[in-house]
Formats: sequence, C-alpha cells, structure tokens
Amino acid sequence: MRYNQFAHIKTSLKTKLAELNQIHYVDQAMLHETPTKLWLQLVEKAFPQALSLAAQKQKAAALLADETTPLTDYVKKADVNVQAFYNVGLQLLGFEPEKDFSLSDPLEAIKKSNLSYQEQLSSKEDVLSAWYDLLCTHTTSGQTLLDKLASLGYFKPFFGNVSDPLFFNGKAQPIFDTNKLIREVVYVESDLDTDKDGQRDLLKVEIIRPEESSSGLKVPVVYTASPYNQGTNDTDGQKMMHNMNTTLTHKKPSDTNYAAIEYRAKSSVPPAPRSITRETTIAEESFGREFSYTLNDYLLARGFAAVYSAGIGTLDSDGVRTCGSPAETAAAVAVIEWLNGTRIAFTNKTDRAAISAWWCNKNIAMTGKSYLGTLATAAATTGVAGLKTIISEAAISSWYDYYRDGGLVVAPGGFPGEDADVLTMECFSRKKQAADYLKVKDIFKKQLADITDGQDRSTGNYNTFWDARNYLKNISKIKADIIMVHGLNDWNVKPRNVFNLWQALKHVPVTSKLILHQGQHIYINNMRSLDFNDMMNLWLSFKLYNVDNHAKDELPDVLVQDNVTPETWNSFADWIAPQHNVEKLCLRPHELVSSKLEPAEGAANFQDKLPSADFEYYQKHLNIWMKDLLSPDHSPLKHNRLLFRTAAMDEDKIIQGEPEVTMSVATNKNHGMLSFMLIDYGTARRLGSVPTTLERKGLNYGFQWREDDLVEFSLAKKTPWKMISKGHINLQNRHSNWKNDELQPNSFYTINTKLQPTFYHLPKGHHLGLIIYATDMGMTVRANEDLAYSIKLADSCLKLNFI
Amino acid sequence: MRYNQFAHIKTSLKTKLAELNQIHYVDQAMLHETPTKLWLQLVEKAFPQALSLAAQKQKAAALLADETTPLTDYVKKADVNVQAFYNVGLQLLGFEPEKDFSLSDPLEAIKKSNLSYQEQLSSKEDVLSAWYDLLCTHTTSGQTLLDKLASLGYFKPFFGNVSDPLFFNGKAQPIFDTNKLIREVVYVESDLDTDKDGQRDLLKVEIIRPEESSSGLKVPVVYTASPYNQGTNDTDGQKMMHNMNTTLTHKKPSDTNYAAIEYRAKSSVPPAPRSITRETTIAEESFGREFSYTLNDYLLARGFAAVYSAGIGTLDSDGVRTCGSPAETAAAVAVIEWLNGTRIAFTNKTDRAAISAWWCNKNIAMTGKSYLGTLATAAATTGVAGLKTIISEAAISSWYDYYRDGGLVVAPGGFPGEDADVLTMECFSRKKQAADYLKVKDIFKKQLADITDGQDRSTGNYNTFWDARNYLKNISKIKADIIMVHGLNDWNVKPRNVFNLWQALKHVPVTSKLILHQGQHIYINNMRSLDFNDMMNLWLSFKLYNVDNHAKDELPDVLVQDNVTPETWNSFADWIAPQHNVEKLCLRPHELVSSKLEPAEGAANFQDKLPSADFEYYQKHLNIWMKDLLSPDHSPLKHNRLLFRTAAMDEDKIIQGEPEVTMSVATNKNHGMLSFMLIDYGTARRLGSVPTTLERKGLNYGFQWREDDLVEFSLAKKTPWKMISKGHINLQNRHSNWKNDELQPNSFYTINTKLQPTFYHLPKGHHLGLIIYATDMGMTVRANEDLAYSIKLADSCLKLNFI
Repeated sequence: MRYNQFAHIKTSLKTKLAELNQIHYVDQAMLHETPTKLWLQLVEKAFPQALSLAAQKQKAAALLADETTPLTDYVKKADVNVQAFYNVGLQLLGFEPEKDFSLSDPLEAIKKSNLSYQEQLSSKEDVLSAWYDLLCTHTTSGQTLLDKLASLGYFKPFFGNVSDPLFFNGKAQPIFDTNKLIREVVYVESDLDTDKDGQRDLLKVEIIRPEESSSGLKVPVVYTASPYNQGTNDTDGQKMMHNMNTTLTHKKPSDTNYAAIEYRAKSSVPPAPRSITRETTIAEESFGREFSYTLNDYLLARGFAAVYSAGIGTLDSDGVRTCGSPAETAAAVAVIEWLNGTRIAFTNKTDRAAISAWWCNKNIAMTGKSYLGTLATAAATTGVAGLKTIISEAAISSWYDYYRDGGLVVAPGGFPGEDADVLTMECFSRKKQAADYLKVKDIFKKQLADITDGQDRSTGNYNTFWDARNYLKNISKIKADIIMVHGLNDWNVKPRNVFNLWQALKHVPVTSKLILHQGQHIYINNMRSLDFNDMMNLWLSFKLYNVDNHAKDELPDVLVQDNVTPETWNSFADWIAPQHNVEKLCLRPHELVSSKLEPAEGAANFQDKLPSADFEYYQKHLNIWMKDLLSPDHSPLKHNRLLFRTAAMDEDKIIQGEPEVTMSVATNKNHGMLSFMLIDYGTARRLGSVPTTLERKGLNYGFQWREDDLVEFSLAKKTPWKMISKGHINLQNRHSNWKNDELQPNSFYTINTKLQPTFYHLPKGHHLGLIIYATDMGMTVRANEDLAYSIKLADSCLKLNFI
Repeated sequence: MRYNQFAHIKTSLKTKLAELNQIHYVDQAMLHETPTKLWLQLVEKAFPQALSLAAQKQKAAALLADETTPLTDYVKKADVNVQAFYNVGLQLLGFEPEKDFSLSDPLEAIKKSNLSYQEQLSSKEDVLSAWYDLLCTHTTSGQTLLDKLASLGYFKPFFGNVSDPLFFNGKAQPIFDTNKLIREVVYVESDLDTDKDGQRDLLKVEIIRPEESSSGLKVPVVYTASPYNQGTNDTDGQKMMHNMNTTLTHKKPSDTNYAAIEYRAKSSVPPAPRSITRETTIAEESFGREFSYTLNDYLLARGFAAVYSAGIGTLDSDGVRTCGSPAETAAAVAVIEWLNGTRIAFTNKTDRAAISAWWCNKNIAMTGKSYLGTLATAAATTGVAGLKTIISEAAISSWYDYYRDGGLVVAPGGFPGEDADVLTMECFSRKKQAADYLKVKDIFKKQLADITDGQDRSTGNYNTFWDARNYLKNISKIKADIIMVHGLNDWNVKPRNVFNLWQALKHVPVTSKLILHQGQHIYINNMRSLDFNDMMNLWLSFKLYNVDNHAKDELPDVLVQDNVTPETWNSFADWIAPQHNVEKLCLRPHELVSSKLEPAEGAANFQDKLPSADFEYYQKHLNIWMKDLLSPDHSPLKHNRLLFRTAAMDEDKIIQGEPEVTMSVATNKNHGMLSFMLIDYGTARRLGSVPTTLERKGLNYGFQWREDDLVEFSLAKKTPWKMISKGHINLQNRHSNWKNDELQPNSFYTINTKLQPTFYHLPKGHHLGLIIYATDMGMTVRANEDLAYSIKLADSCLKLNFI
C-alpha cells in the first residue's frame, strides 16, 4: 500500500492546536496532562462509537503499544515515544501488526507507504502535532483517519448545531446532518425555445442542500449538468446505431477554407419571458434518489449544496436535445445564472411563482465526467459570472475530436456506429413522458434529421455543425479556474480533448491543473492511492468558501499516475517538459531507427482487404483483431499492416504529448486512410485495464450517509505489449479536416498527422513499435475493400517528445 | 419483462377500501366523486414528490390516456375505462408507450408481462379495487408501485407518528423513519469458554431498531449470524490453502461403523457467570456502517429490527473460531436467547452492567446466505425458543457435504485447497486487534491444529469431526418454520445440502418452503422477475407480527426457476413429484440407452494421466479443462474420460432429485476415484451464469434509505452444453463414507453413488450425456498418477427421476 496525499497541508503548531480545539478533540483539561496521558486520551477519543469511558478504554485496550504490551498497560510503565505512538497510530489506520508492519519498527512501514510522521515525540506539543497529522493521514480504507472517525459518528454532536462550515487542515468537515438535507426542484426559465412552442424552455433543476442553508447559512454549489440523469432511451439509441460496414468514398477536391465553414451564432429573439405571478421561497416539488456523483455526495456532508440538471429535452424539462450545441451550453449556463441571482426560476411549470436561490452564496463549481464534464467545460467557455471553477473529468473539448478524426468518421472506443444523432436520441428523456413527448414529437424528429445531416458521415469532414460544437474556440472567454482529469487510456473521450484544452489554457489568465490517470473512462475519486476527494475538498474550500488554505500552491500543476509502478503519482510542471528532446525515428524494414542513420531505400506495402471470414470474425472479436494486429511474429494480419520496432531501450524514457507521424504514402484507389498505433513492446506485468475493487462500500462519505467502493489499479498478468497511442487520417485531408485534397491512385503523397497525446513511461529493455494499418475494426468504417498501400520508407518518420 | 408475484394476495373489496384508507390514499371526500374524477385524484396522488396540487397536475398531465389524449384532457370528455386505466397504470409502472406497450391495447402487454388487472371498470368500487391492485403491482424497477411511491416520500407524513406497523396487502410498509434508526452494541454472555480463559465468552451483537421501539412499540428481529461481518483474514487464509497436487493414497480396509465415529457432546461445566453490578436499558456503544444484507435493510424501514452477530473468535468478541462446530451453534443461539429474555448481555466487556432486549417482541427470524444461512440452520436444529422461522439461503446442512464427497476431499467450487481450517483462520477476526489476539494466540494455534487434524485430508472420510458438524442429525429438534433458498448452479455450497434438509424436514412438524433458482452462490432478493422481498415480507409479517395474511397458503411449497425460459418461476408440490418415473439408462459405447435394450458387451477404458504440460495448463485454465472434458468430438481429453449420450429427447423432460450411477469399475492400483458429470447437450441460448445488472441502485428499500442493484438472468450467447450435476466417489468408500473397503488392482467392483440433486428442464431435441472421469481439476486432489480405469458396460447404469 502506497499513499499519495497532496491535500494534507503542513501547518503551524498554533494552527494545529486551534483546529484540534475547533473540532472538539482537545480541551483545556487535556493540555494539563503528561504527554503520555494526553496520548492515551487522544487514542481513546478515536472511538466515537464508544459512548462511555469504559467502552473507549475497552477499544484502546485492544491495541498493542509494543510487541507484547497493550496500550493501556504500556502507559502505566512507560512514556510515549515515536515507536509506540506509530505502532498505535498504524493500528488506528487499519494496519495489522506482523501482517502489514512490524511492531519493532513501525516507521519502516510508514516510510514505505509514504505516510506522514514526526521524528520527535517527547513534549505535549509534539504529541498534539503528530496527532493532528495522524488525523489527516489516510487509513487503509482510503480516507483520512478523521473521515473514518466521522463515519463512526465523531461529528454527530455538531449535527443541528452548525452555523458555519468547519475546516480542518484546510478542508471542510462532515458536520452537516445528511439526514436533514433539503431536496427541492425548481424550473429555470432559459432564453431558449428549442422546441419552438413560442415559450421559453423551462429547465428542471434538482437541488440538495444542508438544512442550515434555510436558516442563514449561505452555501456554495457543486453543480453537475448531466443529460443522462433523468433516464436514457437505450433501445431507441441502439436502433439508430450507424452501419460501420460502408465504403470510404472519394471526396471531390475542394478549396474550402475555415471561414467558409465557420459557425456563427444567428441572433434570434427569444419569446417573451413568462410574467411572474408571485414570489416565494418555498419549492413545490421534491424528488427521490437522484442520479448522483459520489464526489458531490462527499461534499454534501461538508456544507456544499449539490445541484443536478439534465437540460433541454430531458424528462420534466422543455426543449429538445441537440448534442453539444450552443443551446445546450446556454441551458447549462442558465442554471448558473439562476444560482447567481440573475435569472428567474419557477416552482412549477404552470403557475409562474418565482423562486430564487436565496440560500446560495453565489459561488458555483461544476463537476462531472464525460458529457457532464463536457457541459462544465462548455459553460466555462461562456465566462458566466458565479462559476468559480470547474472540475472537468474525461471531458470533450471539441465534439469533432469525439466522433471524428483526420477527415474520417472515428467512433468512440466501445461504441462503434454511435454518432451525434444517436446520443441525441439517447439523452432525449422527455420521450419517456408520453403526453409531453407527443407535443414535440414532430419538432424533435426534424431536429434529429438536421443533426444526422449536419454530422455528415459521408465525408467525415470538419464543418459548421462541428465548429458549433468546438468549445476550444471560446477558451479566451474562460473566467473559471479549471481542474482537468483524464484517463491516459480513455479511448472513449480520447486524450486529445484534454490536451488541446490544457495547451490552449496557457494563454488564459486562470489557474489550470491537470490530473492524468491510468484509467479508461472512469472517475478516480475512490482510488486508494490518491487523495482525490481531499484535493477537491481543499480546492473547493478555497474557491467556494474562500478559505486561505493555499490550495493553488499545494495542488500540483500536473499530476500523472505512473503506468509502470502501481500507486505512484508524480508531479510535473507541464504535460510536455520544457527540457524535452524531440526525437525523430526513421523507418527501415521492421525497424524504427535513429534519424542519424542512413535512410532506407524502397517502400513497404500492405493491403487492407482480408479474407471474408476473417473480416466477419474480427468485427465480432475486436480483442483478437488487436492481438493479431500487434503480434510481431506469425500474425495472420502480417500482410495487412506494417510494423516497425526500435531496439531495446537502454534507459527508462517518458513519451510526452502528441507523437507525430510523417508518411509518404500511395494507394491504388482515389480514396484511402491510414491508421497508426504506437506500441510498448516488452513482456511485463502492467496495470490492469480496470481498477480492482479492494473494499465494497469501503468509502464512507459521512455518518450513515452514502458509500463508494474502494478501488486501485493492481498489476495484472504479464502481457507482451500495450498500446500507447493511436491516430487516423483520411488521405484526402492532408491539409485540414475541412478541405478535400486530390488523391490520384498510385501516386505518393506526404501526410503528416498527430496521434493522440500521451504521457507514457517506457521502461528500459522495452521496444517502441509503430503499427501502420488502414481499417480500424472498432472505430472507422470498414468495407473490406481491395485497397493496397505503399509507404516510401526514406520519406517517412515518427517524431516524439522524450524526457 | 415477465413478473412473478407470489406475495400479491387477493382480498375483498372491503379490505381493500379499509387499507387504502389506512395508508391515507383515499379519504371520504374522494368517495363522493365520479369514478373518473376519483381515478384522476388517485393518479395525482401517485406523485408524492409533487408537494402542491399544481405540481401533481403537472406530473399527471405528462401521461397519455389514449394514443393522443393526455390524462388531464381525457377526463374532461370521457369516462374511465379499462383501456385508459391501464394505459395510465402502465406508464406509472414505468412502461413506455409504443416501446413497451401499445396504447390501443394495454392489456396485451399486461397479460404478456403476467401483471394483475381487472376486466371491469365502471363503478367507483371497480376503480378503487383496481387501484389497490395496481399499488401492489411491480414496476419495471422491480418493486411494487407502492414501494416506488414510498421511495418518493409517500410515507413521509407517517414518520415520527407511528405507534404500530402498517400492513398493506398483508405486508409491512416502510412507515418507519430510517434516519432515526437506533444502533447499539451489547455483549451477550454465552455458556462457552472456547478461549479457555476461565471466563464465559462474551459475544458482540450489533442491533439496529426503529426509534419507535424505544417508546413502547415491541419489534421483532431479523437476526443474521455472520462470521464475516467484523472483517476477514484473507491473506492468512490464502497462505493456508492446501496443496491439491497430492496423490490419492490407499486406505487400509476397516470395519468402522457409524457408532465408532459418532460425535457425542462432552458435558463440561462452563465457568461461573459474571456477577451483575447493575441493570440498565441504555447501551454504551454504537457503530458505523454495518455489513448488511439488503433484505434486512428492506425490513428495517418496515418495523423490524435487524441484529448482526459474528460469533466466537471474531473482532470484539471472546473465544476462538471452530468452523461450524456445536460451539458456533451455541454462540448463534445465545443471541436468540438474549433476544428472547432468557440470557444476560452487558453494555461493555468490563463493567458487568446488564442490558436486556427490552424493546423486542420475542419473535425472531434468522436470515443470510452461505455460512450465515448455515448458522441459521444450525440454530434451528437446537429448537431454541423465540426463533420462529429461518430463511436459510445457500446453507450448509452438513459440513462434510461442503468440503468432502464420497470419501474424497472435494473442494467447494472456486476454492480449490480450502478446508475447515482455512475458513477458521479467515473468520478469526479477533486477530485484527493485536492486543486482544495476543491473549489467545497460543490457544487459537492449538485449536487450529486440532481442526487440521480433525478434518483429515489424508482419507477424506466422514469421522467424528464431521459428525459434530452435521446438522441433519438434529433435525427432529427443529421448531422454527423454514424457508430454504438455493441455487441449482451453486457449486460452492452444493445442492445436496438443501436437498437433504428438505427431505429430512418431511418428518418434522414445521412448515417448510423451498425456492430453487438458477443462480450460483447468490442472493436473489434483487431479481426483477420474482417478488422475493415481498414474499419474505408477507412471511415475516405473518410469523413475527402474527398478521393473518395466509402467508402459509399463499407462498408456494416448492418454487423453481426454469432454466430454459427466462423470468419463469413454477410452483410444485415437492422437489420430486409423487408421479415421477424412475428411468434407468444403460451404457453402450458412447451411448446412453433405455434399459429395455440388449445390454452392451465388454468394457470401456480411460486413463487419468495427462501429458505434464496439459496437466499444468488445465490447473490454471479450469474453463478450458471443462470445455475439453465435455467436447464430444476431437477432444484432447478423449482418452481421459468416457462420454455416453442419449438420442435426442423427443419431448421436454424435467430431471428431479439425485441422479444415481451404478458402475462396475476396475483400476490398475490399490486406490482410485470416479467422478461423474451429467450434461445437457444441445446448442442453445441458456441463462447466463451470473445475472445481468438492469439498473444500478434501481431498488429503493425506503425513502432516502439503502439501495440495491436490480438484476435478472438473461439469455447468454449460444453454448453447446451445460453441466446439470456432478458427483465423486473414492473407490474404497463403496459402502459408506466412514468405512474403507478393500481395493485390489485390476478387479471389478460395483460402486453406487448419488450425484448432486437437480431440478433440470431438458428441452426436446437435446441429448443427455454422462461423463465418467477421475481427477476433477478444480475440486479433487490431482497428482497426475498413472491410473487407468475400466468400466464394465453391462453392469453399469444411470438412474434418473423424470417427469
């Protein structure tokens, strides 16, 4: 077990004492005890489930202070020292003597696990200082010891007696009674009329807030805009999935420039706002179990309100879905404007009784992953007032980078055939209410047809439809600080989305932080090796409650989970280190070699067409296709791809950013594509693709409140390789994704393309491989056409950023 | 979607009206409305999240009464009728028009889904009667509509105003505020001193009970004895796993009879009880999140208390683990005795302040699966007073049938190398408290050595150790009614355990009910197709609250999930139908044929030894071993097993109970074993081995209370076969599991053995297969010895019960 706590901040003894007092852990009487007696009392208070002194003593008596002496006996004959303190401390953290650490040397385990400790323990001050840090230290169940005590009822005496949030070590504590949370629904009136009924679209908003916010406490909001959270039309979506088995077609060469396809918002006058009949502070609707994000659950116990809204075209709201359009951004922003006091909401959809967010301190953050994080990003690019920060996880920054690549239709990994129109249908939960649906059936049908038309699967080009869904265009408007979280193995929302956002934000005067993990399309707030929830707590306490906790400096700018050693998170100044080397690798038959060597002569060839049976089989067995594509030897696909590998690395290297390939390529038809994969070759145990569940419901987000499973990436069985990155390009999009280039059969053309960005630790002894192929079974169209490709070796290369 | 509701009971109009009134759904004013207006009001009340009439009307307006008319418009111009009623009803149940049913014929979907409906709907009484049944009908999310309303806050007005539980349609309703549940710990003093410290073992008990039980309401208890719930020593257990790669050895022939190995309890005088210093009603210890069973969670909202106890040798309790011994039974029973007022408990382990279960109505049920269900069964066999019923799921009835079979060590499926001593270590959570563990380290070590010795892996025989752990011996003492639940595909706790219990209970004057499902070792209370929670609610309302709901007659005696058609549960009078046929099938080369045909000549042979590489490979790839073992053609194991198959079945058949094999067998050494599998051959889509998750957290067990994932078995991809049953026998245990028979090399002996009981629907066109082999890679010892077996065909056969 190795812990990485970035939100445990160093603080002064004075602050520690004050905070121990504020959480009622230490009182004046205790300060008059000897260091040893003080220590015993601190330990006894670490059992909030024990309601009498006898019960506390019974719990404390079960702990060993050294190899043979229970704590309760130890304090009668000896003084507290470092060894005894941490022996007991580790047991409180869930470590078991002999199994997890040695009672003769607890510091060994502490250092190995990367836990905080104190070298000196003789005075009362030493004991209190070390105890403070112990409370901030993570237990084996992946939360701080203080969180564990909270889950056993430590903060119960605070419940109902709270006038302000309580911060300990810079982070808000769960002193709010989650049994008393208020749940209410309001309908925010947007400026939109996407269902064209002549009325402004009303948007259903679900609010969960501490009871205390009804009696004077103004609370900030974590707001998640989730188009999924009112239900999804999975069957309808499934039926709409596009056929991938279509031929790539020749595109008529064009001179299209960006100006010709640029999206420009049409100004339109919205319908008049509804007149207000009365004002009220009392909502008329509540709700049952919301579709929650556990980070929000964690914060709800700590004095933050959580707000969920699904947006236009979802159940109980007006409007229709539009898949990432400016209207969806406007809908997400409308909720913020209401929270910030500049927009109207009603208690129901008919009576026009206005209700304000009178309980809100007007500091708002947005959270969520995937489409949710995307809408957070989208909202931030409007510069809307009140939105202080977003924590965008696995977010799309440009929808073209989600459904397209290099002038090709490229499906998100795992969702072949999906496109913007399919997702529109899936999220259109308004369909679930039959009478409401009937009203907008026709307009929705038309809207859907427009999306199918706009997404233009026939060319795969970037066009006005996609430009309207490119948030990167509006990055300069961002005023909110941004924390970005993305999986380096996320082939659903591919890493280019976060890379482009990260790079672009360098020119915007906001704070931006980046966390790159080794997961696919997942949340990481329940991972044992990282104190993600604590980090977000530190950050949001700073941003939304203005706590002076130095979060901006404490949190690393770029944090990357290592792909070789489990439970390892390293800090960096930037995604691409300023001191990086750009290395150009050239192609020789089967080899990737230094550009200092003599260039190779001739060309290497492969054909795309497979025997029909293989073509059918691979479509249904993508893993086997991948295995065969990557196998260096005896692969049934050896004529269907080119494979170039470096010699064994003579030292560990890190590949950063976007690998770039330049190819001189010819094909036998007037259309064609190239796909690339960058591979780490070397038999090794690597992190599993999915985290292992360590403890079901191991994480407690408060006292008898919501739970989460504790997970961690562990080393899986040995594998011979791992894909680092991939990329695709239509040979007719050599200059841009919107302009069609000519393509004569059997003529060589130079293409240049960037693969998906990465941050990859390539260990010594491994080989780096480049696979060149065409049809990507799981992502591109596939027609098994009789296409052959030729690569001129001397004019082709791969460029990488190495450190 | 097909629903099977066994707990929806038919009742009179009068009762319906009274109960609708009791749950405050219908008041006098409503009864004066027209049938149509009444209907509208009933629908509007089905949105408890809507807190104003306007909000209710908004929700109701989203429902369609016919293809084009919203409910709210419909009632203005037409009267309620069957079609409109069920159109709206189905929408409330979560069915979507056009997708899940047709608005022009709602009854079609209702009948197809096996939902309740009423043919006539013209009077107010008709409307109320149909509405009552609609409230009892399951939604697409797997609970009754009333449960759904409860999860949206329907019963919130009852919270804090409850003096008695509320029953609707015979089942307790969630009117208790789960936010106010009381959690307390007591320490029950047993008569045991398993850690031999001269003091009676104290047993930690965790209690969760409604707040109302502190102010007069006496509540019954669902009690789960779970040795796992205070933590487990997984690493220690893993280290102790026995080596399976050992040779089967010759056992010296013996004349042992049962009397010689029978377990007889030694009478021992327990230490004196602790003297009581004072009596109190106030507990001194609480707890955080317990390790819960969701059936108990469901009941907690409904006026039942839940009690958990892990027993001797677990964290915070005294004693040591003994793996299923009478001492563990006594520990489980001690808690019942305390609940029933005949035993002392203390508030902590030191002060001897006695606390009684003063809030309990002395009606106790036990629940739980696996070891938990086992302890429920064990407790029932003592006839302890107060224990009114047990719901034992996947329970062991004799530990020999868990770790042994036919004179062989046979591991539970999925746990090769596990044995009683390993499980003892795993559950000995007292080890987690270092100072407490130190006190009993030596005594536990000795106890563990005794268990290793007693389980006797060298012979695999039934002995005194196993006899002490055979609950079937004490079945006649049972006084509690028993509901048994078991997976027909449970190869961990194999079906013999429940079969033997079921058969033996026929001679005991208690009610026993049996539910056989198609799962492995799972709970089934979250399965959409069966109203298991409702059934248990009906049963426990009857048994523990004495509600006159005819549960005994309403619930089927034997309920079996069909293995061919999903979502199908059939009722039977018994596991083996009285009118069954016993069919004897004889062996011809590769064939199973009717015994009416001429017997085959000669013998069929196979060898056990595999090429070393195959032997190594199969151990690590049990699925491939299984596939090769079962493959009729071109199997690499074709010389390592015999396979006999019937012709295609000319009609569907059901195989019930224990298939019995008689074999005339010879082997080339003085030791040997036979294993058997009964196989359904026929390529078909079969139920998946694990249920599919339909809706994460889809089941709500109250209002803002605990949740469960909704699951269901769905048809998986086509498979060529499925194992129906299996069995094992040591050739030296031809007469009993305790006596060693002689075994001369190369001599033929007749063995007769029963395979694991089954209840299997063998479809027309399929073939029944019998595999005869020796080493079972995943279950028996395996040494790859040079053993050869010969089966005399004419003297061997298979007997089955068919209907």
